[in-house]
Formats: sequence, structure tokens, C-alpha cells
Amino acid sequence: MSLANRSLVSLDDLSNEEIEAVFSLASDMSADITNQRHVCQGMIMASLFFEPSTRTRLSFEAAMHRLGGTVITAMDVGATSLAKGESVADMARVVGSYADIIVIRHPWEGAAKVVAEYAGVPVINAGDGGHEHPTQTLLDLYTIKMERNTIKGLRIALWGDLKYGRTVHSLACALARFGATILFRPAPGLELPDHISRKLSTEYKGQIKKLDITEQSGEERLFAVDAVYAPPSSPHQLAMMPDIGLEVELEGGVDALYVTRAQKERHASGTDRDGGKKKYPVVDRRLLKGKEFKQTLVMHPLPRVDELAREVDADPRSLYFKQAARGVPVRMALMSLLLGTIPEPAAQPSESFSRKVEYPHYSRDIGVRCRNPKCVALNEPGYIGAEFQIINGKPLTLRCVYCEHETFPRYIASTEWHNGTVEAKRYHSADSHMARKIRPENLIAFDSEGEAQSLGFKPSRYNRWSVSE
Amino acid sequence: MSLANRSLVSLDDLSNEEIEAVFSLASDMSADITNQRHVCQGMIMASLFFEPSTRTRLSFEAAMHRLGGTVITAMDVGATSLAKGESVADMARVVGSYADIIVIRHPWEGAAKVVAEYAGVPVINAGDGGHEHPTQTLLDLYTIKMERNTIKGLRIALWGDLKYGRTVHSLACALARFGATILFRPAPGLELPDHISRKLSTEYKGQIKKLDITEQSGEERLFAVDAVYAPPSSPHQLAMMPDIGLEVELEGGVDALYVTRAQKERHASGTDRDGGKKKYPVVDRRLLKGKEFKQTLVMHPLPRVDELAREVDADPRSLYFKQAARGVPVRMALMSLLLGTIPEPAAQPSESFSRKVEYPHYSRDIGVRCRNPKCVALNEPGYIGAEFQIINGKPLTLRCVYCEHETFPRYIASTEWHNGTVEAKRYHSADSHMARKIRPENLIAFDSEGEAQSLGFKPSRYNRWSVSE
Amino acid sequence: MSLANRSLVSLDDLSNEEIEAVFSLASDMSADITNQRHVCQGMIMASLFFEPSTRTRLSFEAAMHRLGGTVITAMDVGATSLAKGESVADMARVVGSYADIIVIRHPWEGAAKVVAEYAGVPVINAGDGGHEHPTQTLLDLYTIKMERNTIKGLRIALWGDLKYGRTVHSLACALARFGATILFRPAPGLELPDHISRKLSTEYKGQIKKLDITEQSGEERLFAVDAVYAPPSSPHQLAMMPDIGLEVELEGGVDALYVTRAQKERHASGTDRDGGKKKYPVVDRRLLKGKEFKQTLVMHPLPRVDELAREVDADPRSLYFKQAARGVPVRMALMSLLLGTIPEPAAQPSESFSRKVEYPHYSRDIGVRCRNPKCVALNEPGYIGAEFQIINGKPLTLRCVYCEHETFPRYIASTEWHNGTVEAKRYHSADSHMARKIRPENLIAFDSEGEAQSLGFKPSRYNRWSVSE
Repeated sequence: MSLANRSLVSLDDLSNEEIEAVFSLASDMSADITNQRHVCQGMIMASLFFEPSTRTRLSFEAAMHRLGGTVITAMDVGATSLAKGESVADMARVVGSYADIIVIRHPWEGAAKVVAEYAGVPVINAGDGGHEHPTQTLLDLYTIKMERNTIKGLRIALWGDLKYGRTVHSLACALARFGATILFRPAPGLELPDHISRKLSTEYKGQIKKLDITEQSGEERLFAVDAVYAPPSSPHQLAMMPDIGLEVELEGGVDALYVTRAQKERHASGTDRDGGKKKYPVVDRRLLKGKEFKQTLVMHPLPRVDELAREVDADPRSLYFKQAARGVPVRMALMSLLLGTIPEPAAQPSESFSRKVEYPHYSRDIGVRCRNPKCVALNEPGYIGAEFQIINGKPLTLRCVYCEHETFPRYIASTEWHNGTVEAKRYHSADSHMARKIRPENLIAFDSEGEAQSLGFKPSRYNRWSVSE
Repeated sequence: MSLANRSLVSLDDLSNEEIEAVFSLASDMSADITNQRHVCQGMIMASLFFEPSTRTRLSFEAAMHRLGGTVITAMDVGATSLAKGESVADMARVVGSYADIIVIRHPWEGAAKVVAEYAGVPVINAGDGGHEHPTQTLLDLYTIKMERNTIKGLRIALWGDLKYGRTVHSLACALARFGATILFRPAPGLELPDHISRKLSTEYKGQIKKLDITEQSGEERLFAVDAVYAPPSSPHQLAMMPDIGLEVELEGGVDALYVTRAQKERHASGTDRDGGKKKYPVVDRRLLKGKEFKQTLVMHPLPRVDELAREVDADPRSLYFKQAARGVPVRMALMSLLLGTIPEPAAQPSESFSRKVEYPHYSRDIGVRCRNPKCVALNEPGYIGAEFQIINGKPLTLRCVYCEHETFPRYIASTEWHNGTVEAKRYHSADSHMARKIRPENLIAFDSEGEAQSLGFKPSRYNRWSVSE
Repeated sequence: MSLANRSLVSLDDLSNEEIEAVFSLASDMSADITNQRHVCQGMIMASLFFEPSTRTRLSFEAAMHRLGGTVITAMDVGATSLAKGESVADMARVVGSYADIIVIRHPWEGAAKVVAEYAGVPVINAGDGGHEHPTQTLLDLYTIKMERNTIKGLRIALWGDLKYGRTVHSLACALARFGATILFRPAPGLELPDHISRKLSTEYKGQIKKLDITEQSGEERLFAVDAVYAPPSSPHQLAMMPDIGLEVELEGGVDALYVTRAQKERHASGTDRDGGKKKYPVVDRRLLKGKEFKQTLVMHPLPRVDELAREVDADPRSLYFKQAARGVPVRMALMSLLLGTIPEPAAQPSESFSRKVEYPHYSRDIGVRCRNPKCVALNEPGYIGAEFQIINGKPLTLRCVYCEHETFPRYIASTEWHNGTVEAKRYHSADSHMARKIRPENLIAFDSEGEAQSLGFKPSRYNRWSVSE
């Protein structure tokens, strides 16, 4: 399947082979970066930044200039018609008629997907709220790949804000797809959220194991890993057993240490970070003296604040500025492939460690809707419907196809009520035995009994039972 | 007369033939739009947006890129020296020395004319307050021309806010120039203003007729046309007689329905628009079922709000996204002709339906000045004088050459007072018999007696008479 | 020494010969300005404006486009990660990996120097607070050079706000370097500050002389020159003697009159400027009737407000719009030389009138720091140390290498205390006899006794003496 004329909204839009193809081309291009001006000559990239992100924008724009194309830019568009009153879909259609490719950052989660649906030209998501920023993850992976020649079998530590960091969530999934072992070292209170842990253990083939950091000795507390993800092929799979500690896992050393800043919380300066539990952990010269970091690539998506000491900058293991620089060739490769202006590199064989999970689709005009206040579906209800994947039956779990937030509807019904298959227009508790009897294509879900009743549904007797229980 | 090195401030700057030349070139260019990079290679367009208008700006910038030129952009320039303290004329001279062509949007009406006077390079008005936005009208006309091959003899309906919509006013005059019939369907309270009606009936060759919409039956009220403009060549000219109704006019169907959003007023959502008089009318599937709309091109300058239902988007008659897309080739053609980088297409014969009215010019250092608070002449009095066209004698009506607002001075005098031709330094009521005795080149007009007296004029006895009457 | 791969932070970074080389190339390029697109083809300029300055930005961007290069722009970056939280150094490193050359305007004085140290690509200072804006001075000099063929021996008058005008301070030093005579005509209360006078008399080879403007007659007060700088080669050197007046100096006429607007103070409109002492002086037709202005080039960095009457615009001596236009070829020449994309013009012999003063360097982790609140060193203390030139011993005067502000530390010590050369860890008054005994490389300076004591220093007995005196 060709990449030409496709969009990149989420990294899941690309297979491992396609990602390797991007990397292969990026590597070729970066070897002669000022000599690629023929590739996209005459092409126009629209750079639409509905949220400030100068670094990402400049990287994309530099990439398009290196390819010989031109750029039209809209930034800080809060006050213009592109933002106010006009729908994202209309904006996409209009800008799609001006430009050959659109790069969009938008505060609403799922907005890039809507743009991709309407623009008529390839669209790249440059960040949609807290949801996805796939080219950041691409350049992170690319950096590791360039330095280690593979991702499979590496040991990558994720450091800092693992709770709110969109970058970290995407990277964790991407590393799992490529068969890496992941060590989670959160700042206190900023641990990896359950839905990411669950995703790692259901949609990828490995296992995640929590560790008790209170057991760890003083020195180790600097690198207080509280969970490990191990891919199926890992020789350390046995290390997941409770009686084998982190030490075994770390024997081979950490291949990369991916540091992130606090996204949402203020934290005290890291100077005496060992004193208080609540301090944000800092990567500095002292930490990197640990023998597990002897060969470690120190990475950071930037901008950094205090979590990565400046004294590390001159260390040969520090890779974060090189990592940022690599955003340009990665974006060059990606854009020329989506625009179809360059032959696709020969297929790059790549073993995938993700399960291809085909969840049943849920799409209704009535009933439950995504409740994420930042979801594009909630902000543009006029034409974006309720679209979910049914990712679990018990508890009933719907994942919004736009923002991927999960919702847990409490009541259900079936569209087959008019056929007499079930009692006419009854709703049931989502965890009653009726749930199993409704086929996914017939499912109607409700957030509340009131919602069901306002749509003319009556409580089922089973439901009343479960309520009285 | 060549278009090279000229500016486009108002559509009146172009003859019908020149407009046809732009369309001819635009059509050629759009047939091979990615292959025009040689046309303006090495040319720099300055894109100066003193008001946000991302859509228009991106369209111009994309057009210049398609032509192989480059762009320097200033937007949201409220806080910079380009906006504060510095005169529009100085800004024009400086930017005119950086760029080969200037595209300007400015909140002051007439600002583009001042820029064109000082820049030394071609200037395109991309909107000056509520005054003109000639490239919008060009692309509207171009869209109709492309779809119907002609404008003459078509029936075009203008829908919605006919009072404040700058776009609608320009389009109405342009349609009249090309010999179209115009049907006015205003939102209640947003009828076409008198000065536009007057302009249509004085400066173009047709007739305008008001209709009584209260006569219209329920179904017709959806398309409640309250006035019709018919050009002289119209076979329906007779239909303007009071005893022939709108039905006859509509027999041939509506060729295009040009929908606009409310510009200034908040309006309730259009869902039950038939219930209340004050609702903004909505174009939707139901309306378009009317037989007069069978072949209608549905147009909109975008962005839309609720006045054009999304359900219409998939209808083959819907042309508004195509219309927006056509802004690019139209602007490409216009810019390359003004820059003189492409041979002008052979003269396109075009019948003009406008009278060439040569109004006497009025220019004085003293006396009446334009009173439009958004006029550039009022905002930059230091170097922009009072310049008017005398468009009527009774009542004395002066039209500002910058913003085209009309002013009605109440008192007049003559510069010939010192020659003894009239009584020395007397002022008269503008509607006294003296008005006819003063030649336009000698006219001095005043807004008030106080103004006249402060300049050393004394009331004439005729004037005192008329006051005492 | 080649200009390739160098930065321009201050005009002092360039020798007179190098400035002449830039001018020579600029002159060649401006003769065929639309034909230079091969010079920087494929090059990317990053235009980083942390403060609004549309005019300067557009001039740089137009220059890069004329050279065939492309531009990535960040402006009004207050809200983005490029400004908040992230250090100037990190930003420089990242953007330096996207672009081939960086043009930066920043509110912090010395910020451009920091960017130049970290970016890894050539950096041009487009204004760092009130400190430097070297390309403005270059285009000013270039304009004079183009019109008069030389700068040496010319008589240049600086007019208006000589106190706060960064432009005027830089221009004065540049004119002195090239051997011009300078006439200072300040607005009342906006006289040239002492540190600039001092710099002119210490670092350049001429003399500065104050004049008593109260002696001047009514007519002369319009051109109330309060000081004259004369270069060593000046035939008027004798005129510096107290008994010879300004008249002699003005006999040959003023070659250029450089007008500036008030930078910081509100001033009443200039209409009756002769009435009140506090009025900002206005250059108008009446002033230019003076016989000393017969051949004068009237210059202004623009934007102007009221200090330069519009009636002068049409006068053939008015050069300010031509001056602004010349910013483009000057910046083209400069950028292509720094990028090394064009052979450097053959050495241009140029006599320099500045002394090469090698001040001792002061660099300490402890003790005195720059106190200029706008200095980059004060705003980014994490990695920028206290770095000064010791420009005077009595009073001890340190000049910050970033912002060039002078500080006068009151207490000193020596790093040699532990060697027993002086009494162990004692501090002394900066004006005590001990000052002479401490070698520059050993100097530690303190702003206060408290600072010295908090660092473990004790008062010396000499010091206590001087305190008791």
C-alpha cells in the first residue's frame, strides 16, 4: 500500500514497514539535505497552527523549504474566521483547495482527523490537544534507530511526567510495536495512567509488570523504575516473575533515557530533589555515573526546564539537540512520501509486535456521546457524530474514534426492538446479562436512564432488578 | 490600456474588457495551475493584513507561490510601527521599496487607495473596512462566468444580509455592469440600503423595482424577494410594470443564489425561521426543492454560519467550495497582469451596462470633510485632504473619493467672492437658489453655519430668508 | 579574515575594511537586484522576532528572497516555548539546526550574542533591547557613502533624541570610526549621555567639545548644536579651541542631517516649537532654508512622527525613503558574505579612526554581576556568567560583555589571598590604594560589603580606614 495521498493523524495510520520506509528515506535525505530542492518543487504546504508551537512549526516549514516547496502559514488564528464560527470541516475544505498538503495543530482532540476527512489533500497532525503528535514520535524512534540500528530488543527508560505527557504515551506504544523493553521512571504522582498500561497489555504482545519502588535502596531511588514492559521475544521475559528484581533487567544497561518535563504541575527546583518525595526527578551528571547508563542515549523532546541539567549538554551521550535536528529530515521524508513526489523506498521488512485488533464499530445519532470536553466531536456536534470502537463488553467500554478517550455507558438498548427480538424499546443496565444478547451492530448506549427515557425507552425489568439490588 | 503597473483598489478601476481578460487568463492558468512557476519568479509580494483575514491572505499567498514568487507577510500588526504612529503613506513608501506588489487589508476605508498612491508598486485592495474587497467580487463573477459562460441575461438572487454586506454591494454593482437581473432576498431588517439602490438606478442602465412581500403566499415567503433590478436589455423589462408579479420573472429559474451571513447582528438559530419575522433565512434542502432552483448555482463567500445548511454540501448545485478554490487562479491572473510578467490576453469584447458618469471633483483645504469615522481621510488628516465627487446638486451630495461615503453639506459658498461675482464671503443654504449659481470648481461646502462663520463667512440674506422660512 | 561563518552582533565585530566590503557588494547587488536569486538558493533564514519590528523583519525577509533563499519566521513569540521557560541558548541550538542563518530581535540586551555563541550558524542581531542594531547603522553609513563617496571628513549632524536613541549611539561611534565630524543637536533634556561621550573620546582618536547653546542667537537656536566631535585628521581641529565658535565649523555646510524621533518621552506637537524650551525640535522647510543645509542629505531611520515635517518629503535633499530601501541590498550583501555563498570582494582599503583597545577581561562565578535589568546575563543566570571588560581602574569600571552596560563595584578582593600575597580573604574599597596592587586576572569585585562578607571575606584595615574617613 502506497503512502501517496494518505494522511498521518496517528502513528497507528502507518505500519511498521511504512515507518521503516520513512526512516530509510530520511536517512538518505539527511546525508545530502541541501540537495533535495527538486523533490517538492511547486508544492504548497499550509501550516495551520491554532495553538502556539513555534518549534514544531519551524521544523515543518524548514523541511518543506529543504524540499523546494513553499509554505503558507496561519498561526495564532484565534481571532480569525478560520477559528471563530467556521467549522473545522469547512476550513479544511477551503485550505485544501489552496495547498497541496496541510500540517495542523489544533487544541481539540481529533481535529486533525476531521481535517484529514475533509481536506482532499494529505494532512499531517502536528498535535491535537493532548491526543497525538505522531511526527514527534517518529523523530524519537528515528533517533534511536539511527544510533542503535534497531529498536527491537533495546531497553528504553521513560523519565518524568508519564501521566500527562502525550509524547510519552505515543512513544511507549511505538516502542512496544517495535519490540523494545520499556522502563517507566515517573515523577512521584505522575505515574503512567491505567488506560495506557491496559493498551500496552491488550494491544501489544508483551507484558507489563509493576515494581515496588519502596524496596529500592537509596542509590537506586534516583532511577526509581515503577513498572517494566517486556515484549514477547525478550530474553528477559522471565524477569517479569515476581521473584526476579529490576537488577537483572538492568544488567545489560539502559539503551536510551527519554526525559520529559512536567506538563501540568508546578514543581520545586530540583536542587535537593532527594530530600522530598514530591520533587521532580532531575537527570544530571551524578545520575549518569550509574553503570547502567554507560552507553545510554540521553533524549528529550524539548523544551526542557530543570529536569535535565545543563551540565549534561557537553556529555557525548547527550543526544537531545541532535534529536531535535532530526525532525527536519524525518518530516521531509514523510511529506514527500505523502505527496507522492518521490519513489517509495523498497519495502523495509519489519517485525510488528502489535496485535491487529479489529474492534466493533459503534455509530449512532442518539444516545451516548464522547464526554471529553476537548474532543472535536463535542465541540462541532453539528456534523460529527458519535463514533466509537467497542473495546470491551464488561465493563462496556467505548473509545471515541476522534480523541480515543474511553467512555463507560451505564445503559444499553438494541435497535432490534421494533423487530420484536427483544422487548420493544427497553433499556438495560450495561452490566446486565442482556449486554451479551445485543449484537454490536444493534447496540445503542446511554449515559443515564434519563437520556434513555427522553428518547422513549422504558426500563427493562432486568434493569429494574439490577437497580434494586 | 495595459494592466501592467496599475493597482486594483475598487472594481471600478477595471473595465469590463479588463475583467474579461483577467478571467480568460485565470481560466488558462487553472487548467495547469502547478505549472505557472515561471510567471512571477523573483517577484516579492508583501501581504499586509492590518485586520485578521486568514482565508483571503492564504489565498493570495498561495497564488503568488503558484506563480513562482515569494511572500513577505505582516499580520496582526496592531502593536508595531507599521500601525502605530506611522502614516499609511510612509508605510506604503517603505514597503513599496521592499516588494514588487502589495496586497493590503486595512480597517480604514480608503486606506488601500492611499497605499496605491504612495507605494510606487501595484497595490491590491484585499478589503478596506466596509468599503471594497474587489478580488472577492472578481472570483464571484468568475465562478458564475465559468459555470454559465456569460453573466449577461442571467438571473442572480442575493440572499441574507443585504444591508451591511460589503460583498453583496460590490457584487450587485458588478452584476449590473455585466447586464444581469438581480433578485434581492434580504433577511428581515437587513434590506439593501438606499444609496446602493440609488447607485444601481443612476450609474447603471437598468431599473430597480420594489415588491410587496406581504402579498406573497406562505410557500413563496421562503424566497421573499423584495426588489428586482433589471438591466436594459432584459426581455423581462416589462415585468417591472406594477401589474406583473415576481412569478413571471422567476419562470426561467434562478441562475445563481448568492447566500451571505449576517455581518453585524446576532440572529437566533434558523431552525424555526418561518415562525418569527426576525429570523435569518436559511438555505436548505427544502428551499432548493422549489422549481425555480432546479439549475441554480448555490454560492457563498464563506465563512458560513447557519444560513446555509450543511445538508446542502453534497448537492451538485452547491458551488461554494469550488468558488473559494477559484480565488487562487483569479488572484494569480490578476497579479501577473498587474506585475506585467505575462502578455495580456487579446482584448475580450464585453458589453458594459454602466454609464460612464463623470462627476465634478471637489477638493478644498477648508470646509466640509468626510464624516465617516472609518474613513482614512478622517484618520490621517495630516496629508489627506477633503476630496469628493459632487454626485448631486439637490440635495447637494458629495461622495468621498476614498471611502465613497456620501455627505450632505447644508451650507455653501463660492471661491469667487473676492472677484465680486457674488456678495463677498457670504455663505448660503445648500438648497437655496444660489446653489445653481456656483460653478463646481468654485464650490466651498460647509457642514454647519458655525463652520462657515469660523472661516470668516457671513450669512447671505437669501440664507437668512430660508432659515426664517 | 573571511566573513564566512561569522556573526554580526555589534558593528564592532566588523573592521572598517569588512564594512567597506559589504558596501561594495551591496552596491553591485543593488544595480541588478532582481538577478541575485542564485546567490543563496537553498538557504534558509530563520527570522526570530521576540519583539515586534515589522519593518526590519520585512527588510531582512525581502533580502533573503532576493537572494533566492527561503525564510522561516517566528514573531510575537511571547506565548510559545521559544520564549517561556526555554533558555535562549537551547532555542538557538534548536533553530540553528533548522536554518542556515538566524536573524534575531530580542528585548534582552546581549541576547543576540548568546544566540551567536550557541546556534552553530551565522547570527545577525536585528536589535537586542536598547543595545545594538548593527544593520541599521550599516544602512545609514551605506547611504552616506553612496551619496558622498566617502565618510571621512564629512560633517554629520545628529538631531533629536540623543539620549535614548540606540540608533544614534551606534551611528555616532561608526561615524567616528570612519573619521567624520559629528554635530550633536539634542532635543532639550535628551542630550548625548556621558558614557557615549566618554567612549568617543577614549576609544576613537578625536576630541569632543561642549558648546554653550545659550550664547547662540535666535535664528541659530533652531540648529542648537550643543557638542561637536572632531576626528584627528580634521582641518577644523583648531575649532575645538574655546575661542572659536560653531560658525567656523559650519562654514562648509552640513553634509547630512540625521533626524530621530523621541524614543521614550511624550512631547507636544512641534507647531510652536520655538516658544517653549521643552519642545521636540522639528526639521521642516524653514530650517532647511539655512545656508549650512544647502547640500544636506536629510536622513531618518523611520518611522517618523512629527519631528520631520511631511512638507520636506518632496525636497530633493530628502533621502529617508531611499535610505530605508537601501536596507535590502545592504542586508543581501551581509547575509551572502556571512553565509559564504559569494566570493568576498577584494579588500577595500579603509582608514580606521578607532583605537584598538584591549581591556582586561573579568570573569567570576562570585561577586559583582551586571545590574542592567534588561541584560541577558541577568535574565538567564543559569548558564551565563559575569563577564566584563575592566575599562577603568579609578573609578573601577566594568563593562558587561553582553549588554555593554557599565557597573562601578565599590569593593574588591584578590584571588591570591590563599597564597599569602595579600592578607587572607580581605576585601578593600575599590578606590583604596590596594586596587593598584591586584592584578586584573586576580580581581574579584563586589557591589557591597554585605556581598563580600557573605562570601567569607573580611574588611581590610585599609578599608575600615577609608570607611571611617
